[in-house]
Parts: sequence; C-alpha cells; structure tokens
Amino acid sequence: METLQTIFEHRTVRKFRSDEVPSDLLEKILAAGTRAATTGNMQVYSIIVTTDPEERKAISPFHFNQPMVTQAPVVLTFCADFNRFNRWCEINNADPGYENFISFFTAAIDALLAAQNVCLAAEDMGLGTVYLGTTTYNADKLIEYFKLPRGVVPVTTLVIGYPQEMPGLTDRLPVEAVVHYRKYKDYSDEKIRELFREKEAMPFYQDIVKENGVENLAQVFTQKRYTLKDNLYFSKALLDVLQKQGFMNQE
Amino acid sequence: METLQTIFEHRTVRKFRSDEVPSDLLEKILAAGTRAATTGNMQVYSIIVTTDPEERKAISPFHFNQPMVTQAPVVLTFCADFNRFNRWCEINNADPGYENFISFFTAAIDALLAAQNVCLAAEDMGLGTVYLGTTTYNADKLIEYFKLPRGVVPVTTLVIGYPQEMPGLTDRLPVEAVVHYRKYKDYSDEKIRELFREKEAMPFYQDIVKENGVENLAQVFTQKRYTLKDNLYFSKALLDVLQKQGFMNQE
Repeated sequence: METLQTIFEHRTVRKFRSDEVPSDLLEKILAAGTRAATTGNMQVYSIIVTTDPEERKAISPFHFNQPMVTQAPVVLTFCADFNRFNRWCEINNADPGYENFISFFTAAIDALLAAQNVCLAAEDMGLGTVYLGTTTYNADKLIEYFKLPRGVVPVTTLVIGYPQEMPGLTDRLPVEAVVHYRKYKDYSDEKIRELFREKEAMPFYQDIVKENGVENLAQVFTQKRYTLKDNLYFSKALLDVLQKQGFMNQE
Repeated sequence: METLQTIFEHRTVRKFRSDEVPSDLLEKILAAGTRAATTGNMQVYSIIVTTDPEERKAISPFHFNQPMVTQAPVVLTFCADFNRFNRWCEINNADPGYENFISFFTAAIDALLAAQNVCLAAEDMGLGTVYLGTTTYNADKLIEYFKLPRGVVPVTTLVIGYPQEMPGLTDRLPVEAVVHYRKYKDYSDEKIRELFREKEAMPFYQDIVKENGVENLAQVFTQKRYTLKDNLYFSKALLDVLQKQGFMNQE
C-alpha cells in the first residue's frame, strides 16, 4: 500500500481473529522496525516477541487483562535497552557511562521510533494493531516476567493480528490544534472550546459521558480514565523501575 | 511509494538544498503526524514549525550548530504537551492530575509516534530527514526560545528538506541482535562479538577509530561521542526541565 494511505488509514484494532501471523511476515515486520532512525546508530532497544497462547495469558494481567493480549497472536514489547551496548563496551575496554536518565530517554526514543515502523509495516500487510499504554504502568512486572536485566526497561507494547472487525478512523482535533508556527501559541479559553467543540459534540463521546455519570468528557478523563491517584502511583512505580534498572545514577 | 519501500529506504540526510518545502506539502506531512496512535486519544503533544532562516539560525546553537538546522528549510520540534489538555480540563470543571512523571512519559510517547509518521510521510514525498538528539540536551533553551508553557517539554526534532546528496543505507546489527523470543536472552561475550563483528570490520568505522585516536569503536562512543561526563550533565538538565515544567509533582 502507498505510504500515505497506510498512515492516513491507521486505526486502533481491538478485536482480533486468532489466526497466526506467518513467521516470515513477522520477521519482515520486525526488520522494518530496525530501519528506524536510532541515536548515534547505537540501536539501544530490544523487542520481546510473545506468541505462545499460555505466555500471552501470563502477561495479560500486566495489561489489566485487556482481551486483545490473549486474542491476538502476537504481542511485541518494546524496551529501552542499554544492556547489549554496555556489554559490547565492556568487552572492548571501554567504560560505558549510560546509567543515567538521559541515556534511558535516548533508548526510549529508539524503541518508540522502531515501534511506529513496526506498526505501519504490520498495517501495510493487512494486519491490525493496538498500542498498550499499560506497559509503563506495570513495567516492574514485565521486567520480572521477561527476565529483563539491568539497563532494560519496557516502554510500549504493540499487539498485532488479523482484525476481526475494522473500526472507523478515530477522530482527531483539527491539525491546527497541535501545530504551532514560529513560537508556541498558547490557547485562550475560547480557542480551546473551538478546538474541542466537534469532539465533544460526537454522539460516541456523549454516550461515554452518560455511561460514566459525569458532567462532561473532560471529567471522564480526570475522574475515570487517568486519575491523579493512579498517575501518582504509576509515576512512582516507573521512577522506581528506572532506579532499579540502573538509569538514575547521578554520579 | 509503497510503505515497506519507504521504511526500508530510510536514510539520515545531512546535506540539504535550500529549496523551500511547499506549504501544502508541509501541511500534508503534519496531518500525517496527527494520524499516529495517541494514548486515550488525548493527543498530548505539539509540533513547533520553524522555517524562517533567521529563526533557524537562532535555534542552531541549541543543536550544537549542526549545519542541517540552517541549511534545510524546515525544522520541526516535537513536544510532550499536557498544557492544551489541562486547559481543556480546567474550563470543564475537571481537575487535571497530569503534573507527574507517568504523564510526561505518556505525552513523550505521543510526540515520538507522531514524529515517526512525519518522518516517513516526508520521505515518501521525496524529502530527506534527520532527527536531532540534541533536543533533550538543550530542552531548557528550546523552552525559553519557543516560549513553551508549563506542561510542555521538547523531546525530539526532525529537520526536513530536499536532499543535496543521498547517502547509502546505514548499517544495522543483524535483526536477531534486537529481537528476543519468549524471554530476554542475555548475551554471552562471544555472542556480542559475533553480533558486532561485521560493524566493527567496516572501513567506515575503522577510519573513525583512527581519526579519534582510540583503540576501537566502542571507545569512540564512551570517550568521544556519549561520555559519562556529558550524560550526567544532560541528565540533570533534563530532570530539572521536567521539574520546572511541572512533571515531577509526587503528591
């Protein structure tokens, strides 16, 4: 498929058929990941492939039992990974200085750019995909399960398989909402209302507001989906993981 | 161009012609960015567009005067951005709980997935691209220059323009180096040597080792390009930025 078509037709798939992804197809998709840009060509990321149904069942709780993990045949966990690079340095009499926050973030960028290549390559081949934000919430549990050594932290997960149903395109804010020319143009209350008006008016979201018994869509996010309490809990958990995996040494 | 061709023919362009990118083309590329997956469809990122030659000159020092910033006609700074979303919450009587680390990382993921869409869309249209890792090093200076409010942190930059010369594909480690099936397969010294052998043998890298007057390629990284001293400095700077922009409130 044409690149722009693949990009503009991206949708999040949440219902998958159980059909396996042929291994040559999967290998091609993974190879596509390795072509993404990487800082200094260090390739400081890894991809963990989970296909076995029992193993997908085992990691499912770490993703709050979202059904896609057990339904779809392939789960890819993308990790920031300085372990391999550090090992290479060490056997070459080179002293790696990568146990710090900037190195984690560099490695996370590598992993995320690779993930988006994998996402688009999979979609181009007729597969459906969904990213799991739960990855950073339960990074500690994924580390334990996958036996990730020091220097490795999971940053996102892509579930891949043949779609059982193809949802419509997800709504987006007008492009002007996210693009700033020259300097950041901060938003007046009126501008915010204008940019979010169409979204708020969609019957899909109005139903969600009703179901959740709140006043409006913003409260669905702040009171139900991404609450302060949860965010504080998961922030601490992720910072603890960075510490434990050796990315917070400040001397 | 076919999606897989675009992905597999990605290269990093470092010499650009000064020809402008037509505004309709640029808008299409930016729209492609907005089609990337985003956590909870919150779209917590922004893209700052810098095209004016004087303004590109002004931000060039923040990217260590890499010549692409002034040569190429378009510089896109991708930012994690909860400011817009927070403003929307506030005018809707919803109390945003996003001044914490997990929210920063969520927003950074959004920004990076959008960046990779933009990269591939640009390449599909015959443009060349280069990511600038310097973005997180000098995030504080970019924040000041672009007047980024609390809740906004730059995470990467894409320089875009018509290539003056098209370099070859960048070498990559064998795909097996970055892919792990089932569990993380840690590397023996022998395996590391095997995976890096081809890379180390390339005349391109052997010349770099000689030019740098070090023993081997690993030392080029640890002693010249990404040193412990620099990493500690930039780690502190980035953590200070997260604090200052309101992403490290733990209560």
